Amino acid sequence: MYILLLYPSFVCSYEPIVVDVNEGRQIIDGIKKGDEIYFPFSFIKPYYEAYSSEKNGVVYFKHNNAIFRDVAGYTPTGNYLNFDKIAVENWDNYFDGHSIPVNNFRWGQHYYPISILHYGISHHAQKLKCGHNCDIDSNYDNSVDKWINYSGQDNISANGEGVRFTGLDSSYMLKINSSEKYINLDLAFRNANYRVYFEVETTDGIKHIQLNAGSGSHSLNDKYYYVGVPLKTFENRRITIFRDLQTDVKKMFGATYKSLLSVKVRGDVDVFSVSTSKTNHTRIIKRVADWLLEKQDSLGAWPSEFDHMFYSGRTEVMKAGWYSAMAQGLAISHLVRAHSLLGDEGYLDSARSALQIYSVPVSSGGVLDYYDSRPVYEEYPTTPSSHVLNGFIFALLGLYDLQEYDSNIYARDLYEEGFNTLENILPLYDMGNRSAYDLTHISSKTYPNIARWSYHATHVHQLKVMMSISKSTVIKEFHDRWYEYAFGFKVKTN
Amino acid sequence: MYILLLYPSFVCSYEPIVVDVNEGRQIIDGIKKGDEIYFPFSFIKPYYEAYSSEKNGVVYFKHNNAIFRDVAGYTPTGNYLNFDKIAVENWDNYFDGHSIPVNNFRWGQHYYPISILHYGISHHAQKLKCGHNCDIDSNYDNSVDKWINYSGQDNISANGEGVRFTGLDSSYMLKINSSEKYINLDLAFRNANYRVYFEVETTDGIKHIQLNAGSGSHSLNDKYYYVGVPLKTFENRRITIFRDLQTDVKKMFGATYKSLLSVKVRGDVDVFSVSTSKTNHTRIIKRVADWLLEKQDSLGAWPSEFDHMFYSGRTEVMKAGWYSAMAQGLAISHLVRAHSLLGDEGYLDSARSALQIYSVPVSSGGVLDYYDSRPVYEEYPTTPSSHVLNGFIFALLGLYDLQEYDSNIYARDLYEEGFNTLENILPLYDMGNRSAYDLTHISSKTYPNIARWSYHATHVHQLKVMMSISKSTVIKEFHDRWYEYAFGFKVKTN
Repeated sequence: MYILLLYPSFVCSYEPIVVDVNEGRQIIDGIKKGDEIYFPFSFIKPYYEAYSSEKNGVVYFKHNNAIFRDVAGYTPTGNYLNFDKIAVENWDNYFDGHSIPVNNFRWGQHYYPISILHYGISHHAQKLKCGHNCDIDSNYDNSVDKWINYSGQDNISANGEGVRFTGLDSSYMLKINSSEKYINLDLAFRNANYRVYFEVETTDGIKHIQLNAGSGSHSLNDKYYYVGVPLKTFENRRITIFRDLQTDVKKMFGATYKSLLSVKVRGDVDVFSVSTSKTNHTRIIKRVADWLLEKQDSLGAWPSEFDHMFYSGRTEVMKAGWYSAMAQGLAISHLVRAHSLLGDEGYLDSARSALQIYSVPVSSGGVLDYYDSRPVYEEYPTTPSSHVLNGFIFALLGLYDLQEYDSNIYARDLYEEGFNTLENILPLYDMGNRSAYDLTHISSKTYPNIARWSYHATHVHQLKVMMSISKSTVIKEFHDRWYEYAFGFKVKTN
Repeated sequence: MYILLLYPSFVCSYEPIVVDVNEGRQIIDGIKKGDEIYFPFSFIKPYYEAYSSEKNGVVYFKHNNAIFRDVAGYTPTGNYLNFDKIAVENWDNYFDGHSIPVNNFRWGQHYYPISILHYGISHHAQKLKCGHNCDIDSNYDNSVDKWINYSGQDNISANGEGVRFTGLDSSYMLKINSSEKYINLDLAFRNANYRVYFEVETTDGIKHIQLNAGSGSHSLNDKYYYVGVPLKTFENRRITIFRDLQTDVKKMFGATYKSLLSVKVRGDVDVFSVSTSKTNHTRIIKRVADWLLEKQDSLGAWPSEFDHMFYSGRTEVMKAGWYSAMAQGLAISHLVRAHSLLGDEGYLDSARSALQIYSVPVSSGGVLDYYDSRPVYEEYPTTPSSHVLNGFIFALLGLYDLQEYDSNIYARDLYEEGFNTLENILPLYDMGNRSAYDLTHISSKTYPNIARWSYHATHVHQLKVMMSISKSTVIKEFHDRWYEYAFGFKVKTN
């Protein structure tokens, strides 16, 4: 013990040591062992932005907190980047009566074409993976005698291939008892006098999700989630209504979906078929494509109907009705894929029409801007220009898809001009250790808007795709370097 | 001891732990103590580029390895940035027969105007600091009877205020015995038949530094360092020759200068005065200014007479005779300062004449290039353009000096246009955690040329100066942020 007290390092070769960081800006506790000094991760993590976890006695240090995926082999009808891994259902949104996602922005709830297209394209990507092994419907007998009249007088009749309900006072129920998450109804609302309920069992008890005629608004109480179905063009037409009950239950009741107990109907509704399914990719793909057809305006574009400040202090507000080249590109990519899967020629016509706005300058309300006289298709048509990189590349991919799929010469010209721009402006986004998100710093005369790692990963995925569809050595060089940035590589100094 | 063996952590709370870095790219040895993981500095240092030293049991961690100085209060005749701390004598060069530094480039020994101007301006800055307390000559009696004839027949005579030596066969010596580092001679070489030796005592014994007529070449053996003095315009004219003996001894003999024992002369030389001094700022300022007058060409510029590859793989070779806006700017700054100190009107005329080349495009052999239609004065007139930041700002400072000192309207216009460019292109050099050295990555479509910390410090010093002479909030913002980059600050991500 005498020796131990005099020579504690004899049994413990580590000694605490004070570390002065940058001339006293921080003082931290390090460890000295032999000639080596050890720095605590609690210093490294915020100072350098680093990540770590510990598992089975090993520390895993990570330079980034993003997920890099293999996105090789791009085709206009194939998997779109890493979109097979995207779940818009988990974003901050809700689904309207026609199962189109509506964003919960801080500034309100709005349809956002870019989000809707992520929803559509991601389900296309998922469909490609599961092929014929998914989207399998469990069909329920929809004959008159299966519907139980549980309230009011009996007012049901056979109507061709389906059943006809009449009058809000007569309530019917079809027993389902399925744990499949999607409920799908082919039906026609003959007018606004109807209710359709899905009675679900959840970890928080029985809940009802109720569709009724409405502008698309929705409301909620402890037991009922009311979803308005905008009738408009659908009124008295046969349509498909489906719900992702799992997502509804989670978003609206904060509970976990267990099963669909029954479908309840009252009012002036014709029901042609009832099914449930584990997946619903095809219906979602079609639903989004149909939404695009419905919403495309006279300029072939999908405006965002809310004022939007892209970068406070750097850009002016974009007034409601602004267009996005990224939305156009994603829309074309979705429409091409939907056409390839579903064959609706209207989808291809819509995609062609979507090209127009690429040639309209931002100053005239379009999405075309310039960097150093080179055309850039803008995700955000801001003043001054923002040149958001990922949005520009999404816009290019739409052009590529239509050029390839439709041998479209107009798309080809737009693509080639834009691709040439891309090769020339990529250096402006290269920070030597990461990429920048946009070029707002140039017009605003300030610091670059550095991409968070998830966006850096998006850039890498996009460049990987561009590599697979071009022989550009510039694109390859940037891809390879930007990928390595994510794992600590930095370029040399002069 | 039983307990000790079972619970070693009882006496040593540190445990080794394996750290996997970036999915197995590196495996390092960390330390775990409680919830904290410690990383070895031997990992941090190369991974992040960090610096540290240990002193008195404290570790000093540094984000950069540069020196940041207070350079506030810029005036056209004041201290030039941090140049009072620059010692061109320590650079890789030698000093020609007229004490002008000649760079030892990998590709040969060449006069380099930029280095010569660092030499001149740094001595001006040092002179400002020591004022009348420096540049004090210790004068030696130069009368005929002080010169000892130690070889050949006697051939010395009084010649006005000096002494006249004649014939290479007659050798004379004047005893000095001074440890002052500069030897200064006012003399005239009547023709090329002469030798002047400085006999010095060094830590490696007695050495001789010998001046003789020559093109400027120099040679060396174990005991003698031969320096050629180009006669040209000086022949048979009274000139001042001086040597920094300490620097000569160090560079040529790898030894330390101890004292000057004697000056030896033979040949057709008139000597008017002999002195030594501890400093020689004024003679150096004048010498460099006179060199500028001598070398300024018909375009008012100082060409570099060697081929130069600024950035292999990114720019084409600049052919011998290329001009540099940085050289022009430094030259103007030196000439203005020399004029203010010495009053020679020729210096101011030369400075005015130096403006011409600022308006000549690189494509026509000048230094004017453009970024996005904005004029940039180029340190290196490369194809494609390089837009080296520090060189551009040095070029601007010359313009500022002449605008202020000479109320020069042409300089003012050039300055204001260039300053406007500077405010607009600074964002392109901002990497979010450090600055870039140039913009070669843009035209070359590749990664940025990140400034090493010493150049980053130069940028910070330059911006500090620009802040002191302008009210630009842009300049101040960049200065403040770039300064903080040097101590670990990084801008946020999107």
